Amino acid sequence: MRKLLVEDLQLGVSPSDIQVVDSGRVIEVLWSDGHLATYPATWLHQRAFNTHKRDLRNNTVRSKPTLWGKELLENLPRASFPELLQDDSALLQFLQQLESHGLVVVSDTPTKLGQLHRLSDRVAYLSRSHYGETFIVESKNDPINLAYTAAKLEMHSDIPSRKYKPCIQMLHCIRQFHGEGGDNQLTDGFQVSHNFRTLHPDKFHILATTPVDFIDIGVEDGRDFFLVNHDPMIRLDINGQIQSVNFNQFSRDSYFRVPVEEVAGWYDAMKTFRDMVNDNQYCIEYKMKDGDILVFDNFRLLHGRKAYTIEGERVLEGGYWEWDDVLSRRRVLQAKLSNE
Amino acid sequence: MRKLLVEDLQLGVSPSDIQVVDSGRVIEVLWSDGHLATYPATWLHQRAFNTHKRDLRNNTVRSKPTLWGKELLENLPRASFPELLQDDSALLQFLQQLESHGLVVVSDTPTKLGQLHRLSDRVAYLSRSHYGETFIVESKNDPINLAYTAAKLEMHSDIPSRKYKPCIQMLHCIRQFHGEGGDNQLTDGFQVSHNFRTLHPDKFHILATTPVDFIDIGVEDGRDFFLVNHDPMIRLDINGQIQSVNFNQFSRDSYFRVPVEEVAGWYDAMKTFRDMVNDNQYCIEYKMKDGDILVFDNFRLLHGRKAYTIEGERVLEGGYWEWDDVLSRRRVLQAKLSNE
Repeated sequence: MRKLLVEDLQLGVSPSDIQVVDSGRVIEVLWSDGHLATYPATWLHQRAFNTHKRDLRNNTVRSKPTLWGKELLENLPRASFPELLQDDSALLQFLQQLESHGLVVVSDTPTKLGQLHRLSDRVAYLSRSHYGETFIVESKNDPINLAYTAAKLEMHSDIPSRKYKPCIQMLHCIRQFHGEGGDNQLTDGFQVSHNFRTLHPDKFHILATTPVDFIDIGVEDGRDFFLVNHDPMIRLDINGQIQSVNFNQFSRDSYFRVPVEEVAGWYDAMKTFRDMVNDNQYCIEYKMKDGDILVFDNFRLLHGRKAYTIEGERVLEGGYWEWDDVLSRRRVLQAKLSNE
Repeated sequence: MRKLLVEDLQLGVSPSDIQVVDSGRVIEVLWSDGHLATYPATWLHQRAFNTHKRDLRNNTVRSKPTLWGKELLENLPRASFPELLQDDSALLQFLQQLESHGLVVVSDTPTKLGQLHRLSDRVAYLSRSHYGETFIVESKNDPINLAYTAAKLEMHSDIPSRKYKPCIQMLHCIRQFHGEGGDNQLTDGFQVSHNFRTLHPDKFHILATTPVDFIDIGVEDGRDFFLVNHDPMIRLDINGQIQSVNFNQFSRDSYFRVPVEEVAGWYDAMKTFRDMVNDNQYCIEYKMKDGDILVFDNFRLLHGRKAYTIEGERVLEGGYWEWDDVLSRRRVLQAKLSNE
C-alpha cells in the first residue's frame, strides 16, 4: 500500500545520480530532492511502459473473453463439484473457464439445498440481492416473478432493475422436470452484440445510447421492494467496449422516458437484437441433469427456459457471485499454484 | 410484470377504433390485429411522452443531488438513531437527505457493536465486501490497511479496487479519541468535480478518460484476496454526467498501464484535483461523538481522517449499503406514507 501523501509529492523531482548495483539486480536512484531510492530490476521490468508488459498485466487483471456460438455445445466447459471442493487446480481451471467462456456446467452436486453455499465458500461468498442470499426457482402460487411459474422464460439477463445487477448466476438443479420442456437456452450476448454492431450499426447505436427503465416491484420475506434502473440495453464503457447486456422484457417498465418519436425505432432495434439472440447460430440448449449447477456470467450471457407442463416438479436453487471476488480468487490461486 | 413475449409483438399494429368510456376515466382501443385493450386515463397521463411527466418520473427513480461546500457544516443533515428504528417518516427523511446531500449524521446510537445491523434491518441489509459484513476501524498490529493505524488518512473513497465499489458507507463511532485529532474530513466530490471541469477542462478530461489501477492485496479472516480495478478517477456515464469519483492514493497501484508520455500530465491533473478536494472552501471537518454514525455516499463524497496519537483508543464499526436497496426503500416508504 502506498503511504506517501499526495501533498508531499513533488512533480518536479528528477534523478541526479543513477547506479546499477548488486550485479544488475538493483538500481539506486538519487533524486534531486536528496531522497535515495532502490528499485529491484525485476520490479522495474514488470512495470515497464511498453505494450508487451501492459498486455501481461491486462491479463492478470482480466483475461479477454472467448466469444462463442452454437459450436460450444459440442465442447461445453465442465467441472466436477467434488473436485472443486478439494482441488485448487480444478478450482482455478473452473474460474478461468468462467472468465473466458462465461459458462461452466458443474456436475455431481448433491441434490439438496445448501450446495451453493459450499461452492461459494471455496470462492468467496454469496452476493445477496433483494431475493435473499439464495432463492428457490419452482412453480409457486401467486408468483412475484415469471421464473416462479412453469411458463416459457424468454431470453434475459437477471435483475437489470438493479444498477448493480448480479454479476454471475448459479442455478443448481435439485430436481429436473422429466417430461418435455424445462431446458435452458443460453446465448453469448457479447458475441451477438459484436455481430449486431457490424450488421446493424444504427440499431446498435440506438440500443447502446437509449436508457430504458427496468423495474421490479414485489414483496420478499415480508419486505416490500421497488427497484428501478435506467440503463441502455447494451452498456458500453468509456472506450466503447461492450460491458454488459441488459436484456429483460418482462421487467422492462411501462414508463419509457424518451421523446415519443424515438419509441418505434427503439422497438425495431430491440426486436432485431432479440431475433439474433434466439437464432440457433448463437443459442444453445442444455437441459440440466439433477445435480448440475449452471454457472454463467450475467453481464454477458442471456438465458431462457422452455416451458414445462406439470407444476411443482422442477426445483432449482439460485444464487449470485460478484466478478470482483471471483477474479480475486483466480488471481490468488494463479499466484499460489505458479509458485508451487 | 410484462408477460407478452417479444416474438409475439407486432410492430405494425395501429388503433382501428378508439372510445372514451366511463365518463372519461378509461380509453378503449381496438387494435388492427383485433385485440381490444382498455387503458385507465390516469395510467396513460402518468406515462405521457412530455418533459413534465418525465421529470416527475425521473424524481421517483432518483432525485437530483444538492451540491455543497463548507457552508454545509452550519446545517448538517441529522437524524436520531432511536427515531429511525421506530418512525417511518423519520426514516424516509433520512433516506431523502442521504440521496440529496450524500451525508447524514445519525446521533444517540448505543456505543456497542451490532448497531449497524439494527439500522440496516430498517433499510434492507448490509452489503458485504472482502472485509466482511462489517469491519472494525482501530489501530491494529500488522495492519493490512492504513485505516487500521492512527496515521492521517488522506481524502479518499473506499475500495475503488472493486469494480463494484461500496455505494454507501456507515461509520459508527463506538469510542472517539478524546485528545487532539481523529476528526473526519468530508468533501462533496460531485461539487468539486463539477467546478474542476469548468476551471480545468483539459485536466478534467485526463482524469475522466485515463483508467488507473486500484489494488488491494491482503488476508481477511484467513482468506487471501487480490483485487484490482481499472477505472478512471472520475467516472462518467454515457451522457457525460459524473457518476462516481474514485480517489484513493494509498490503494493506487505501482503499475500504470498508459503510454509513458501520459504519466506526468496525469499526475499534474490529479494533484490539482487533490488540492481542490482539500480546499476549505469545499472540505468540512467533523469530529464524531460517541454514538454518532456517519452515513455517506461513497460514489460521491471523499472522506479522510486527521491523525491521532495514542493507539487503541478510537473504535469504529463500519459497513456498507447499496444504492439500489436504499432507493428501493425510499420509494416504498414514499408510496406508503403518501397513501396514508
